[in-house]
Amino acid sequence: MKFRVALLGAGNVAWNLAPALEDAGHEITEVYARTLRQAEEITERVYSARPTNDLDFSESRAEIFILALSDDALSEVADQVILPEGSLLVHTSGTVPLEVLDYSSASYTGVFYPLQSFTKGKKVDFEEVPLVLESEDEETLQKLKKFAKSISPMVSTMGSKDRKALHVAAVFASNFTNHMLRIAEEIMHRQGLDKDLLKPLIIESISKSLQLGAKRAQTGPALREDMETLEEQHRFLSYNPQLAEIYRLISQDIMDS
Amino acid sequence: MKFRVALLGAGNVAWNLAPALEDAGHEITEVYARTLRQAEEITERVYSARPTNDLDFSESRAEIFILALSDDALSEVADQVILPEGSLLVHTSGTVPLEVLDYSSASYTGVFYPLQSFTKGKKVDFEEVPLVLESEDEETLQKLKKFAKSISPMVSTMGSKDRKALHVAAVFASNFTNHMLRIAEEIMHRQGLDKDLLKPLIIESISKSLQLGAKRAQTGPALREDMETLEEQHRFLSYNPQLAEIYRLISQDIMDS
Repeated sequence: MKFRVALLGAGNVAWNLAPALEDAGHEITEVYARTLRQAEEITERVYSARPTNDLDFSESRAEIFILALSDDALSEVADQVILPEGSLLVHTSGTVPLEVLDYSSASYTGVFYPLQSFTKGKKVDFEEVPLVLESEDEETLQKLKKFAKSISPMVSTMGSKDRKALHVAAVFASNFTNHMLRIAEEIMHRQGLDKDLLKPLIIESISKSLQLGAKRAQTGPALREDMETLEEQHRFLSYNPQLAEIYRLISQDIMDS
Repeated sequence: MKFRVALLGAGNVAWNLAPALEDAGHEITEVYARTLRQAEEITERVYSARPTNDLDFSESRAEIFILALSDDALSEVADQVILPEGSLLVHTSGTVPLEVLDYSSASYTGVFYPLQSFTKGKKVDFEEVPLVLESEDEETLQKLKKFAKSISPMVSTMGSKDRKALHVAAVFASNFTNHMLRIAEEIMHRQGLDKDLLKPLIIESISKSLQLGAKRAQTGPALREDMETLEEQHRFLSYNPQLAEIYRLISQDIMDS
């Protein structure tokens, strides 16, 4: 089943989602952004979609409207967008509850949360993107499921509370692991060492963690409660007190776990 | 060039190193641990090595003695071990300086630090283990290099100060990323959600981070300075104040980076 879809947003999610939608056979009718230039950044990635900075979609041929916006911008755009009769409006946020769409002009509402870390310029294979759906209306949920399954084999439904927990877990699993790697890179850089030296360690650590579970996979001075090393490494980081405090706090949490 | 090697220690490093040494053609003469039972856990992984709990190695045929012990135990064992004339004693620690071996009975000393996360029961391919060497004696360093290159193609030398920085970076890159995954798993578990839902996100995040570098790869509410989501997620974690503080501190550090 093919749908006509309008995308509202020109960020990392929209950049990745637009070609995936088209690859799955759906038609992208419009891409909205605050400026035409931003919208064109997305429309130029697909065969045919009209860029627009106008929130009046009353004449649009789209059936599904996807709000791929930052959480801050979501409710404002949801309240302002003018949608045609019978339209389904969904947002892509992990945190924002479904109810944010209650005051919109949509006939039906839902959540379409792609559980993945998207970056412009780094194409993601949607076969590897779990899609998490929500709707209070059973017919809408069935429609959303058909739509989602055309893009990814990993489709699940959950309520706003579970999705919120999932998003917090995702921040630790993705953004915070990435920040640990960022800190490691900076320590290497500061010392004049090649950060690539850490690559085999990173790959093995993550693969072991996924294979054994993170609890069994843990190693290192905090797990061994090797206080001498912990104190020495903490002292090493004293050039950046915030970093030293991160070291202390995570080491403490490993010891407490 | 084949060496006769004695291993002192029965932890994660020794468990992984013993078969790798034998696979590279070296002979393991003895494995020392505090108890014979612990030593046997390692000797049973190789063709022929004698388990021992005696630190008198004066009659040993080994040329290289590897101290694969926790940092706490290192200096004590180094001071007590009785080595034959002409022996080379190395330790495998990332943090402990070379000088810890100064008061040992070894003729030559060095560092043989395998930069990897080892766990008993999870075999590591030593082709993927950078070996970081140190010695003050040029001839010893050449010997160590030959020995290391027989086990891994990734061999480098650095001083104790660089190695200490490398080890701190490794703790962030390995132990702390793993702990972020542990926290994510526990949030999922607490909410009754399947942790495997996060797998594609974890794999994509790490692969993106290695490809683009962690700075460019970062996404999420902290990077977007999405204060509403940050506050809501912080509130969500209030059931565990230490966890909430970790969330706050890492988010702050992402915003400051």
